[in-house]
Amino acid sequence: MADARIRLGMVGGGRGAFIGAVHRIASRIDDRYELVAGALSSRPDNAKASADDLHIAPERSYTSYEEMFAEEAKRDDGIEAVSIVTPNHMHFPVAKAALEAGIHVICDKPVTRTLEEALELEKIAAKSNAFFGLTHNYSAYPLVRYAREMIERGELGNVRLVQVEYPQEWLTNAPEADNKQAAWRTDPNQSGKAGCLGDIGTHAFQLAAFISQLELDTLSADLTSFVPGREVDDNVHVMMRFKGGAKGMLWTSQVAPGCENGLRIRIYGDKAGLEWSQESPNEMWFTPLFGRHQRITRRNDNLDSDVAVRGIRTPQGHPEGYLEGFANLYTDIADVLVARRKGESHAIESWIPGIGTGVQGMRFIQAVLDSSEADGRWTTL
Amino acid sequence: MADARIRLGMVGGGRGAFIGAVHRIASRIDDRYELVAGALSSRPDNAKASADDLHIAPERSYTSYEEMFAEEAKRDDGIEAVSIVTPNHMHFPVAKAALEAGIHVICDKPVTRTLEEALELEKIAAKSNAFFGLTHNYSAYPLVRYAREMIERGELGNVRLVQVEYPQEWLTNAPEADNKQAAWRTDPNQSGKAGCLGDIGTHAFQLAAFISQLELDTLSADLTSFVPGREVDDNVHVMMRFKGGAKGMLWTSQVAPGCENGLRIRIYGDKAGLEWSQESPNEMWFTPLFGRHQRITRRNDNLDSDVAVRGIRTPQGHPEGYLEGFANLYTDIADVLVARRKGESHAIESWIPGIGTGVQGMRFIQAVLDSSEADGRWTTL
Amino acid sequence: MADARIRLGMVGGGRGAFIGAVHRIASRIDDRYELVAGALSSRPDNAKASADDLHIAPERSYTSYEEMFAEEAKRDDGIEAVSIVTPNHMHFPVAKAALEAGIHVICDKPVTRTLEEALELEKIAAKSNAFFGLTHNYSAYPLVRYAREMIERGELGNVRLVQVEYPQEWLTNAPEADNKQAAWRTDPNQSGKAGCLGDIGTHAFQLAAFISQLELDTLSADLTSFVPGREVDDNVHVMMRFKGGAKGMLWTSQVAPGCENGLRIRIYGDKAGLEWSQESPNEMWFTPLFGRHQRITRRNDNLDSDVAVRGIRTPQGHPEGYLEGFANLYTDIADVLVARRKGESHAIESWIPGIGTGVQGMRFIQAVLDSSEADGRWTTL
Amino acid sequence: MADARIRLGMVGGGRGAFIGAVHRIASRIDDRYELVAGALSSRPDNAKASADDLHIAPERSYTSYEEMFAEEAKRDDGIEAVSIVTPNHMHFPVAKAALEAGIHVICDKPVTRTLEEALELEKIAAKSNAFFGLTHNYSAYPLVRYAREMIERGELGNVRLVQVEYPQEWLTNAPEADNKQAAWRTDPNQSGKAGCLGDIGTHAFQLAAFISQLELDTLSADLTSFVPGREVDDNVHVMMRFKGGAKGMLWTSQVAPGCENGLRIRIYGDKAGLEWSQESPNEMWFTPLFGRHQRITRRNDNLDSDVAVRGIRTPQGHPEGYLEGFANLYTDIADVLVARRKGESHAIESWIPGIGTGVQGMRFIQAVLDSSEADGRWTTL
Repeated sequence: MADARIRLGMVGGGRGAFIGAVHRIASRIDDRYELVAGALSSRPDNAKASADDLHIAPERSYTSYEEMFAEEAKRDDGIEAVSIVTPNHMHFPVAKAALEAGIHVICDKPVTRTLEEALELEKIAAKSNAFFGLTHNYSAYPLVRYAREMIERGELGNVRLVQVEYPQEWLTNAPEADNKQAAWRTDPNQSGKAGCLGDIGTHAFQLAAFISQLELDTLSADLTSFVPGREVDDNVHVMMRFKGGAKGMLWTSQVAPGCENGLRIRIYGDKAGLEWSQESPNEMWFTPLFGRHQRITRRNDNLDSDVAVRGIRTPQGHPEGYLEGFANLYTDIADVLVARRKGESHAIESWIPGIGTGVQGMRFIQAVLDSSEADGRWTTL
Repeated sequence: MADARIRLGMVGGGRGAFIGAVHRIASRIDDRYELVAGALSSRPDNAKASADDLHIAPERSYTSYEEMFAEEAKRDDGIEAVSIVTPNHMHFPVAKAALEAGIHVICDKPVTRTLEEALELEKIAAKSNAFFGLTHNYSAYPLVRYAREMIERGELGNVRLVQVEYPQEWLTNAPEADNKQAAWRTDPNQSGKAGCLGDIGTHAFQLAAFISQLELDTLSADLTSFVPGREVDDNVHVMMRFKGGAKGMLWTSQVAPGCENGLRIRIYGDKAGLEWSQESPNEMWFTPLFGRHQRITRRNDNLDSDVAVRGIRTPQGHPEGYLEGFANLYTDIADVLVARRKGESHAIESWIPGIGTGVQGMRFIQAVLDSSEADGRWTTL
Repeated sequence: MADARIRLGMVGGGRGAFIGAVHRIASRIDDRYELVAGALSSRPDNAKASADDLHIAPERSYTSYEEMFAEEAKRDDGIEAVSIVTPNHMHFPVAKAALEAGIHVICDKPVTRTLEEALELEKIAAKSNAFFGLTHNYSAYPLVRYAREMIERGELGNVRLVQVEYPQEWLTNAPEADNKQAAWRTDPNQSGKAGCLGDIGTHAFQLAAFISQLELDTLSADLTSFVPGREVDDNVHVMMRFKGGAKGMLWTSQVAPGCENGLRIRIYGDKAGLEWSQESPNEMWFTPLFGRHQRITRRNDNLDSDVAVRGIRTPQGHPEGYLEGFANLYTDIADVLVARRKGESHAIESWIPGIGTGVQGMRFIQAVLDSSEADGRWTTL
Repeated sequence: MADARIRLGMVGGGRGAFIGAVHRIASRIDDRYELVAGALSSRPDNAKASADDLHIAPERSYTSYEEMFAEEAKRDDGIEAVSIVTPNHMHFPVAKAALEAGIHVICDKPVTRTLEEALELEKIAAKSNAFFGLTHNYSAYPLVRYAREMIERGELGNVRLVQVEYPQEWLTNAPEADNKQAAWRTDPNQSGKAGCLGDIGTHAFQLAAFISQLELDTLSADLTSFVPGREVDDNVHVMMRFKGGAKGMLWTSQVAPGCENGLRIRIYGDKAGLEWSQESPNEMWFTPLFGRHQRITRRNDNLDSDVAVRGIRTPQGHPEGYLEGFANLYTDIADVLVARRKGESHAIESWIPGIGTGVQGMRFIQAVLDSSEADGRWTTL
């Protein structure tokens, strides 16, 4: 049936992983997917135990993505899409194999470990009929999408300033020894040269670009590794100049005690400003210049926006959060994939971050690394 | 297999309903249930269409709960549990039939339309081997449970005051004509004599009792129907006296413009106070008397509480909300039901609102109705 | 000169007092007064030391108000007005003497210790040419006055609900033994029969009446003394019915740990709601029903209100607080007194709480005491 | 008498001025000064009218500071101190003349128009017996001083990050034509080459240095004039490197719609972080790493700090704001000047910004101007 649940496989996300579980919940919330196969771990015992946890049939639990793609291709009910939730260095080979096998890809960010890989993957995606989506989940919140629409409609006037920040505290000390999540994120071989920059800085950059619709022209950066012995950055300071004259700052850190998951953006035009914070995602400040009132827009304020409203499940005052925002992306992708089954397309596709967003994110990472190495020289993306 | 998903049926919740969809999402978030049957609507066409939407097999879509219970009993893979998400007046007959058929019940609140029905249901539940859970979802938030533990540990000292409120705005005008949700909630035949009082006042009362662990002794109430022609209350003022000397106030309203879903509780002892608000569920204020610091407890602050921590899915700063709180209750019930499959019990059962909570809620409703009728006379529960 | 500073005397407010210092700062902020005489303490040594502290000439430091009024009357530059900042039981005799001597009165609240005294003072004031102002300072904040104007203009529609509260924590234990401020406030001989009710409950009631412009018809009250041995109430629960059909609740407490000075009011009409909190006095929430935006009004948002704007001294974002609100009242009174010097009147007088407000406050206190004694019987003011 | 009020003169601050009125209120709040003379305006009619407004005797109203200093020196009761509240370009000549005449100086910021003038004034101050204080008022809030003490005590551990910002909205358009305050601030001849940078950027820098006690080593800056035709910057982006390894960012803007007076600082060490915002000055967030609780420190939380507590006038929950913070500085200076009358010193002097702070502020301005001109080159102060 055209509307049947999407048959999904997963690479990574076995016991002890973090983001895999988030993807799975996100895929279930609106009941559009069925997780039927997995290469959840390269360790056979972990792969098997993880598959059992997830009600995956034993014969569809694999220990490598190559095996999974090959075996599933033989089945009538083989997977249609794969979620890639491995450490960064595996994104490229898995995504490449999937796209070449015609399997749709839902890939965690950053898209690859290096800009070169991203450019290569862009070519592969262009040749493939399969869909490629990148889970920049923060851009799927209703009010984030509404913010973008407000700017497109000119409600802020000419945008002059984009101030974005994303501080966390969890790497203030050196948990790398004990904590698997910390270990791979601070290991250049798995994570890439960018530490905090790649892990959360890309989210901040993507959110700024997504909402403002501005293209970053040049940047000046100052990277730091505050924790002794750490091989990758744990704090990022960037000044930005956008095409058209707007400017901005980006700060991201994983050594800021008291900051939980502090992604926050403020954009100012010559007519108004707005502010949104991930930790209070159901409201947004919109502040007209010298307005008689400050205004706070809430998720259910009868928003005149289809794309915002489609991501709302509950009435006003019922907070939706991180998992629901993530689920919005999964549901959007399901709509695209169901349309493709019928040989059609779906308008929501333009709102889903894809390979282009991924490449742009890697250009940003590379420019920050280059500028910081050159003592802050303004560097073109 | 002992750990297989719980086979779930649903009564009510067809197209156009609200709370049914919430129950379904809640049941899916942690992947512990499979919705396999439904009496989703008494109108055959709506029942069929709704079942199709939900991937329920056509032969397991029924047009009455009686038929569903009878037919499912014949199957090896028949439903083990039923979610009751109808208007209030149907809670009693459906729950009675399920309990008598040995089917576990997950019932929306208030438990019944009248106190008499609740007392009758209590007897039926006592005779049944089946489990009965009542979805007072707000008591399943991690920090709500933690608040209760703080009080049990004596961190507030002797509790003196319980101030609880639950204002909404959505019935400020008279949407009854156009809005199905408004229509049945303001119709005494479907909803019971209590309007706002039964719909959300019971949540406020249950939350106060759940956290404080105090037993309400007497109350003095003043009910109002502000909207002309409305047959049930839309504003509730109550003064409360608890056994042991504590006092409190309860305010709930559906005619308070600007209030979305403002359930909020404040409890004060002789050593400290605390405050929690449903619209910001991931934090709680805890305020020791003359403390050098006010303190805000956050969901992921390494809480020394198993029952709080088990309801957390994401790291700090990743907001979880209404659906996740609701899911906590479904997951707790799944743990209980899985244990029962093995002839065991599960400690979490004591944290799940059951028939006793339901009866107490109906006693509260009855006492408020009686007191208000008697011009605020202090009335014993 | 007509515009010269008002020559002010003070009764009470010697070393160790609290509210006297507040009155003095309030009188200085806009430089409209000169404190030239005082009966600051009945203890001569304290009176003298206090006068020295305040740069009052020794010959104008008195040990009784009778002496002060008599001696100052002999001087060409004698006092024109007196601030009464004693414990409550002295308000009546001092105010009576001043009014009879033609000296303008600025009196702290509650106006007297009993309703009888208040009614008597009302007659005296009616016969006197002197002005009588009561320092219900909270009604002098710009946004409080603006709130009243919004209601007068119909921006809330028909007002249905008035929810006001004023919790504090400072009497949670029994500081009466060591703390002079606590001692007189809990001593019925000095404070009157009302404890928390008279000290801060009157502020809450006055604020509700001032903003809503509703007249309280009847009330049902429940008073408590939680601290063992305390002779006056330390917690007050009241349900209210206003003339015209609006209802409300009032809660005030001095045993609520974590609450500093939590005066807060919420008013709901059939078109909109508003909320203001004394601890964040520079902003107010105004929330139209189903508005596309919630709105927060800020002190400097180009308010279309003369009476609000005249109480603002600094540009937007520069917080003004308790002392500035108090100063607004002093400056308003100075405008009235300067006008009277010229035989004129000043329009601001209608915004200043006077003897009528004081009498109404004592009626409220008496009705609460009576209702609580009668186990919550609805009692007419 | 040693404790008599300080006899104060003022230069600038006539009708139509802004900051002069603030200084006068600040000087009155604690009743430590008497404004007895003024060169309030260079226009004789405005000078006279302004003096009348302020109850200054006509013979002590002057039209030039030279005349005021000369005439007052002849009087036994001549001024002891002068407040300089002119546009920036007049700070230097007036302060020079006062210091050379032995008159204590209370000078608004920035200290001068150029670094050269500041260095010259530093030499003059060193030779004078008179006191020089600079009104960086934001550093006189109780919780700001407490923050500095927390850092000195090591409660944050080793400080790594200083993020400071100060956005405003009032110059988003071009009010220069109509608004006297805007006009001189955007005129390089009166204000200096730095626009927003000098007006509020210096406050942000001073606050960061004051609290953190870190010395800024180098900076990289990007200045912008967004409003067409404006000759000075209206937006400032700076990356900072402090001696010892800490880093930071500074953003200040006068073209950020919705931002009123948004001075805000966040400092992170390896043990804890803190945050303070000028618009909510009575509270401060202090956040220990992985603490079980976030903590909010409030102004009256029994702070173990003499220097913080001395700046508090009211009990908990009674908000004090901008004027009270400013008054703290005036009162501190009064204590110093009264001590000097007796040939003594006062310990509070070390907490009052002086000429050294002023010079450092001008070094900061100069380095920002130089770096921005050199396309962001890291520039040493």
